[in-house]
Amino acid sequence: MKVAFQGELGAFSQQAIRQLLGSKAEPVPCPLFDHAYAALKARRVHAAALPFENSLHGSIHENYDLLLKHDFVITAETNVRVVLNLIAPPGVTLRQVRKVYSKDVALNQCLDFFARHKHLEREAFYDTAGSVKMVMEQRPPGGAAIASALAAKIYGGRILKSEIEDNRQNYTRFFLLEPKGSKPRTPPGAGRKPWKTSLVFSTRNVPGALFRALSALALRDINLLKVESRPLRGKPWEYLFYLDLAGRQEDEPVRNALGHLRELADFLRVLGSYRAA
Amino acid sequence: MKVAFQGELGAFSQQAIRQLLGSKAEPVPCPLFDHAYAALKARRVHAAALPFENSLHGSIHENYDLLLKHDFVITAETNVRVVLNLIAPPGVTLRQVRKVYSKDVALNQCLDFFARHKHLEREAFYDTAGSVKMVMEQRPPGGAAIASALAAKIYGGRILKSEIEDNRQNYTRFFLLEPKGSKPRTPPGAGRKPWKTSLVFSTRNVPGALFRALSALALRDINLLKVESRPLRGKPWEYLFYLDLAGRQEDEPVRNALGHLRELADFLRVLGSYRAA
Repeated sequence: MKVAFQGELGAFSQQAIRQLLGSKAEPVPCPLFDHAYAALKARRVHAAALPFENSLHGSIHENYDLLLKHDFVITAETNVRVVLNLIAPPGVTLRQVRKVYSKDVALNQCLDFFARHKHLEREAFYDTAGSVKMVMEQRPPGGAAIASALAAKIYGGRILKSEIEDNRQNYTRFFLLEPKGSKPRTPPGAGRKPWKTSLVFSTRNVPGALFRALSALALRDINLLKVESRPLRGKPWEYLFYLDLAGRQEDEPVRNALGHLRELADFLRVLGSYRAA
Repeated sequence: MKVAFQGELGAFSQQAIRQLLGSKAEPVPCPLFDHAYAALKARRVHAAALPFENSLHGSIHENYDLLLKHDFVITAETNVRVVLNLIAPPGVTLRQVRKVYSKDVALNQCLDFFARHKHLEREAFYDTAGSVKMVMEQRPPGGAAIASALAAKIYGGRILKSEIEDNRQNYTRFFLLEPKGSKPRTPPGAGRKPWKTSLVFSTRNVPGALFRALSALALRDINLLKVESRPLRGKPWEYLFYLDLAGRQEDEPVRNALGHLRELADFLRVLGSYRAA
């Protein structure tokens, strides 16, 4: 099974594919998100594993936009803990390191480490796994990178310090996307996890519009797991809402709630029901 | 007035400072967000102008986190339209360009342009303005960058194609942060704009918790301008909500709604009242 992801080999997305499908799936790297969608549309891959949310950086609207442009469904989700490591070519010691390359968000997640090692300069790079690849290929003097343990393994780097991230509660949430009509998949070990349903809807911005929309869930005791408003910039007083609820779209209370919400919303699309990660 | 921002000179944040304070404010570049907060805390700058949300990429949780760690208040907001331009050293024509450098998010926002110019290779770089600086200094053969018109001006690049972004509705929302107790500022031309108030609160995740919290606003006909839930990862069943409402915290209905919300929430912090951008 071929699965598209965004980034270089060794990206956290590759870890997501393992968690979603085990080690037999073949990860297909794509430079940008839209390449992964195009590969799935053209059936060059069977699925795409893409990040939709990070616990520190929020929702990745770009992927919600691309998902709404296509006819794919979410068939599974997983959370990858972002574990960051200081990685250098073998033989280089921590004392010799002077410049650390990584994506700006990764550098920003290791502030305590940099506060303890004040001699280290930080240099923003376009990609985490890519920074390991660059340090291994180009060997900039005193250069090291911050990335996943998988990236160290793939490019032959040595981990000088592991788990240097400030916040152990840094997770990225990935969805597995497949062509319309695909059935939910159960990732290894997730057989008894409760169901979740993701949807997108819009309402006009009148006071209480969201309050009324949420009544469709609250009155049926359906638990809300995520809500996020997003102004529709082309339509000044309209909003798009991303919502996750507990339950499966085939369940009666959820089916009724979705029917009720359809009455209250201008637009509604169910993105998929899947086992909670 | 010295104002910290994140990025290189020519960043969209520098445009935000102009919109917020006019051309007399002195922009102070900081490599990372936390540097800007540290500069404000140490009173090396009078204010910081930082991005909290992008219409395509969502909320920047990192900045909400940093804001909650400090005692600053939001005194103004502005939206900067992200206008992207293809920039090359003078003398280089569009036909000669082969490789285009920019931040991955900026490259992703010019997909129609790249579809029309299939000979162009895209190369992710750590920063938009920084990519112009690099192309001008290092002159990689056939190299061009994607960034703001301001970056072209600052580094002496020539705009080969202007406004190449797919979506004209791409805005970044900036807040001006100042020490606790600072009064709201009115950006040039915003004297008659309505007031907005931003707050953060948390509730336990019981069905209907947000529905009840929103009743504090809906029952007083207070308009909700943004709502976003964020799981508190350390506390599995608790959520943080970011909320913007129409009105000023001194207004009676807003004061009453905040009092009501304080009863319903476990934690509540008002981040500031300011003129809507």
